Amino acid sequence: MEIEIRVGNGKDYKVIIAPLSEIDIDGKVAIVTNPKVAGLHLKKLLSSLSAKEVYIITVDDGEEHKNLSTIEKILNSCFNHKLNRSSTLIALGGGVVGDMTGFAASIYQRGVSFIQIPTTLLSMVDASVGGKTGVNSSFGKNLIGTFHQPKAVYIDTEFLTTLPNREFRAGVAEIIKMAVVFDSDFFDFLESNRLDNDENLQKAIKRSLELKAKVVSADELERGSRALLNYGHTFAHVIENLTNYRRYLHGEAVSIGMSMANKLAIRAVGFSSSEDERVDALLESYELPRRFFIEDLDRFYNRFFLDKKSLDSKLKFILPISIGEAKIFDDIKKEDILNTLELYS
Amino acid sequence: MEIEIRVGNGKDYKVIIAPLSEIDIDGKVAIVTNPKVAGLHLKKLLSSLSAKEVYIITVDDGEEHKNLSTIEKILNSCFNHKLNRSSTLIALGGGVVGDMTGFAASIYQRGVSFIQIPTTLLSMVDASVGGKTGVNSSFGKNLIGTFHQPKAVYIDTEFLTTLPNREFRAGVAEIIKMAVVFDSDFFDFLESNRLDNDENLQKAIKRSLELKAKVVSADELERGSRALLNYGHTFAHVIENLTNYRRYLHGEAVSIGMSMANKLAIRAVGFSSSEDERVDALLESYELPRRFFIEDLDRFYNRFFLDKKSLDSKLKFILPISIGEAKIFDDIKKEDILNTLELYS
Repeated sequence: MEIEIRVGNGKDYKVIIAPLSEIDIDGKVAIVTNPKVAGLHLKKLLSSLSAKEVYIITVDDGEEHKNLSTIEKILNSCFNHKLNRSSTLIALGGGVVGDMTGFAASIYQRGVSFIQIPTTLLSMVDASVGGKTGVNSSFGKNLIGTFHQPKAVYIDTEFLTTLPNREFRAGVAEIIKMAVVFDSDFFDFLESNRLDNDENLQKAIKRSLELKAKVVSADELERGSRALLNYGHTFAHVIENLTNYRRYLHGEAVSIGMSMANKLAIRAVGFSSSEDERVDALLESYELPRRFFIEDLDRFYNRFFLDKKSLDSKLKFILPISIGEAKIFDDIKKEDILNTLELYS
Repeated sequence: MEIEIRVGNGKDYKVIIAPLSEIDIDGKVAIVTNPKVAGLHLKKLLSSLSAKEVYIITVDDGEEHKNLSTIEKILNSCFNHKLNRSSTLIALGGGVVGDMTGFAASIYQRGVSFIQIPTTLLSMVDASVGGKTGVNSSFGKNLIGTFHQPKAVYIDTEFLTTLPNREFRAGVAEIIKMAVVFDSDFFDFLESNRLDNDENLQKAIKRSLELKAKVVSADELERGSRALLNYGHTFAHVIENLTNYRRYLHGEAVSIGMSMANKLAIRAVGFSSSEDERVDALLESYELPRRFFIEDLDRFYNRFFLDKKSLDSKLKFILPISIGEAKIFDDIKKEDILNTLELYS
């Protein structure tokens, strides 16, 4: 199946959800990947790909290598292979590879094409629509980057067979997020269909992408409603920061963050306890974490302001009113926040 | 006077050619400049500027500092001052400062506004329209960058009173270039009006920008006709490369390059000798260089292929048919090129 992502300005593109097959590209191609993914999946991609010249650029795996210095290495490798403005970069890997490849493509000779081939569930549902590219800075995650749309995205759920279970479940957290924020029917679907086969997975990925595409195309440069996608993230970023980005996968931190956000939503905006329990049960059914021990309430609270979305100094929370409908709140009382955090101390 | 630059997609902006006066900006501002320009002109800018918070970021002057590492310094300074997505960067300086500030603005938190205040004639006529930003790589000039349009450009010819004569004349070369490529009336104007007073300067800058804006808006991403702006540059890049970017200012190399291109145009596309002489005389009247001693013909010829516009391996020359009309040629015979180069050996 296919989804047409409408961006406008001649930047529309297709997400193809299907087993990888013929990919024909004019001009030179550089595949950016990491050593592990290359070992697992490069052979498959190379069999599907036809292009004039193909180069492989491997970068170290992990958020700690997602920085400007790795970008410079990718660019230098492109220059060495004399890639030109008609060349294409292909990202084969998870979010780190995708974000960096997109960023490198956006600044190489002032912009070349790139194609996303995500190999993790998280990057399939999260990174393949939206056009966000970038790297971390010592001041925080994803603080340097551009908006640069891919020319196409290929999603082949067969790549997921080699994905560690824990990473798979972290990806499910983002799918559940989309359902809670935007679509109660989709939430019902997830409650009654396990994501343990290609058919259900493809359906869930497709629906997640459609929902994301809708909000993104309404707000390409992230000035408004796109913030809804950050449901669970205000808490998750603090949790990741306090645990030095080591203890939890991003999706796991988001799972805890959603559960926390729901508790705050019950207190501050009238979200119902029974719906909160349904969300918790669904997260639980994928063994996703929902608890986090807060040692120091004030420390946790103050970390909210380190988040880049809060450099403006007004705290924003995305809270559900009901399953399938969330809103952006920038007037939540400090008292409600602290009382919610107390549940975790 | 003002020029409205039409870019589309909500990115239109104004170039204001007038003595600097009230510039009101919402949110935080960082002025990026170099120590020398700061000493000469920062006071004037600060008197005209009203903003919530103003920070000054100085970067080292010179092409050799126009690289990713300086960009990282600018970004880190922005993070230190907690600039956010509503903040504005102001470039106060020549092309190096302008290109780097625009690039930093385009990748800081995925893009913030920036304002150009060029202080050299070259950056007034060349860098203030077109949206090109970027830095050099060890593989060549301006190979890393983005297209990012300024929010506004302020051109105050009073800044030019402190500009060294040699730099001033190098800027005139780019003005002459615009006339030869696009506008014979403008060329007539330049032949009969010296650019030694504000009135003529403002007229010449305005006309250059109008001509550039026209070609740029027809071809924002530089896939076609925008290449006409590279008249003289195919030769100039080789000359700059062979002299390690030290002997000539960019405009001086372009002056030599135009004169060389005209000689090739006489031989290959029927440009007239009398018009060639008029262009040479106008360049000469501003003491711009037109001669370059080529030691090794083959070496010079081979360097054409190092130019990024030629990574595609087809050589492109922008040659005048007559004053006011130039075309892009990608089928010039090697023999004609070598015979032209021989004139300089």
